Amino acid sequence: MPETFAVAGAGLIGRAWAIVFARAGHSVRLWDGNPEALAASLPLLRANLDDLEAQGLIDSAEEVTARVTAVDTLGDALEGARWMQECIAETVEAKRGLFEEADRYAEPDAILASSSSSITASKYTEALPGRLRCLVAHPVNPPYLVPLVELCPAPWTDPAVIQRARQVMDSVGMVPVAVNKEVEGFVLNRLQGALLAEAFKLVADGVISTDDLDKTVKDGLGLRWSFMGPFETIDLNAPGGVADYCARYGGIYERLQAEQAEVRVWDADTVKRIEGERRKVLGADDLATRQVWRDRRLMSLLKHKQAATDEFGG
Amino acid sequence: MPETFAVAGAGLIGRAWAIVFARAGHSVRLWDGNPEALAASLPLLRANLDDLEAQGLIDSAEEVTARVTAVDTLGDALEGARWMQECIAETVEAKRGLFEEADRYAEPDAILASSSSSITASKYTEALPGRLRCLVAHPVNPPYLVPLVELCPAPWTDPAVIQRARQVMDSVGMVPVAVNKEVEGFVLNRLQGALLAEAFKLVADGVISTDDLDKTVKDGLGLRWSFMGPFETIDLNAPGGVADYCARYGGIYERLQAEQAEVRVWDADTVKRIEGERRKVLGADDLATRQVWRDRRLMSLLKHKQAATDEFGG
Repeated sequence: MPETFAVAGAGLIGRAWAIVFARAGHSVRLWDGNPEALAASLPLLRANLDDLEAQGLIDSAEEVTARVTAVDTLGDALEGARWMQECIAETVEAKRGLFEEADRYAEPDAILASSSSSITASKYTEALPGRLRCLVAHPVNPPYLVPLVELCPAPWTDPAVIQRARQVMDSVGMVPVAVNKEVEGFVLNRLQGALLAEAFKLVADGVISTDDLDKTVKDGLGLRWSFMGPFETIDLNAPGGVADYCARYGGIYERLQAEQAEVRVWDADTVKRIEGERRKVLGADDLATRQVWRDRRLMSLLKHKQAATDEFGG
Repeated sequence: MPETFAVAGAGLIGRAWAIVFARAGHSVRLWDGNPEALAASLPLLRANLDDLEAQGLIDSAEEVTARVTAVDTLGDALEGARWMQECIAETVEAKRGLFEEADRYAEPDAILASSSSSITASKYTEALPGRLRCLVAHPVNPPYLVPLVELCPAPWTDPAVIQRARQVMDSVGMVPVAVNKEVEGFVLNRLQGALLAEAFKLVADGVISTDDLDKTVKDGLGLRWSFMGPFETIDLNAPGGVADYCARYGGIYERLQAEQAEVRVWDADTVKRIEGERRKVLGADDLATRQVWRDRRLMSLLKHKQAATDEFGG
């Protein structure tokens, strides 16, 4: 049954969330504090939807666009909405102000979610009467192409709200995961950070070039991770499963951990080297074109994953 | 032009390398110190090739199989071979003995490569007259489905040999990368280890479940990594490229590094918990079936990547 979703903030992430909700058949009320940004957002959103239609990922960009309405106030956006997705500036002050207003105007049973990638919900929801319905729902960019969403409660968020949030995100085609404690970076960026830290060290130490490191992931390590996680990967890499794997290789990984424990800043020399190696492969003028390529490849990968899951199982 | 490749060791990895070389049109001489293992290897290899044929990844399993000959001695395998791929037991002693013999019998310009994932080439090639042509060529399992191969020289390996090894690996459809210094775990397993260490901690600390962590990678982080590396990913995640990304987010990642520096063994309780959560998703009796599924998904992903590269560029 179509419902109403409110999106606060009509930038890149807000528009992408509007696509997610509207693609699933729901009405979206899109609001932005900056009227010019709001006015500009619908044509940009339509361009993204045209691309999805061209790639066969939606039937009609026109129909999906028609479900999105730009509104003048946050109160208008929240009226009748079951869910608010906040996508405004990444500062505690901005989010505190917005959540105060949202908690005042939202329907009593609406869930209030922030897209924040770095500010935990407790920093701006503690004083709210409705704080138990507030959480972070952190997407990957863009959420209409990368289905994962991290649901990150504050200590006072009602577990029933998290349960309901999982259902809502499932129902709009996202893949929700629950991050049970407030940790910096949530889970995805902590995992990315752990791998990037080692990648920077290996390049800084002259072990491997930037380009060969990327190949190591995209032609090796990253293949299985695109359809199994790291635990399933090791579960299938020893005859007796993951416990067997840990018994066989735990010692090696412990030695590696000890070597990798050194905290090393991303120093200017290494950043310059990586920037230099990347610019040889891709000129600065081609970054925007390559981002379009990336999104096309993501669309194509999503279609492949759907077909492979249908054929072989997920 | 078809050439001859020698494969020493007819286990899982040796058979897989035989497929790589034979699939590229070359003759393969497969040898194993255990005659029973050698006799059993050809039917197993044929079964893998039948699967590749069924998935449309090779034209004829029969033709590829016909290029592989089982031979009785290492000397027979090496005669006329341009490359030896060693895939025997993972001990220094075994490898030292094999490389001594191989260096004696191999053609003067043959390259001698080990598949070792954990023993660096310097540990068993130092005393050899032909040590400058020895290196590790570390594959992912199975190399006929995951194209990455890490080329890891000993300090005395001739750089020209590494250059030639890159060409040979390119020519048989692999994606070679150069690991310029002998480091434990080479590059792929160091990256995997860095991510796994953090994954274990997050599960141990109750931040996320095993299953949700896997989703975080397979429905989020791992998608882009399957066709771009981690550096290209962040290069495209800030308007001004990778240096811009580092300027914006370096501070957050530095704080994460400090939090992640703690070395923590894979303790029995956490391993037990992960094993328990995995066995709820996949029974121990179903591991082998799921490994077949994994390989089917890898085959399907490879076909997709080829098609997407043809359509959108790589």
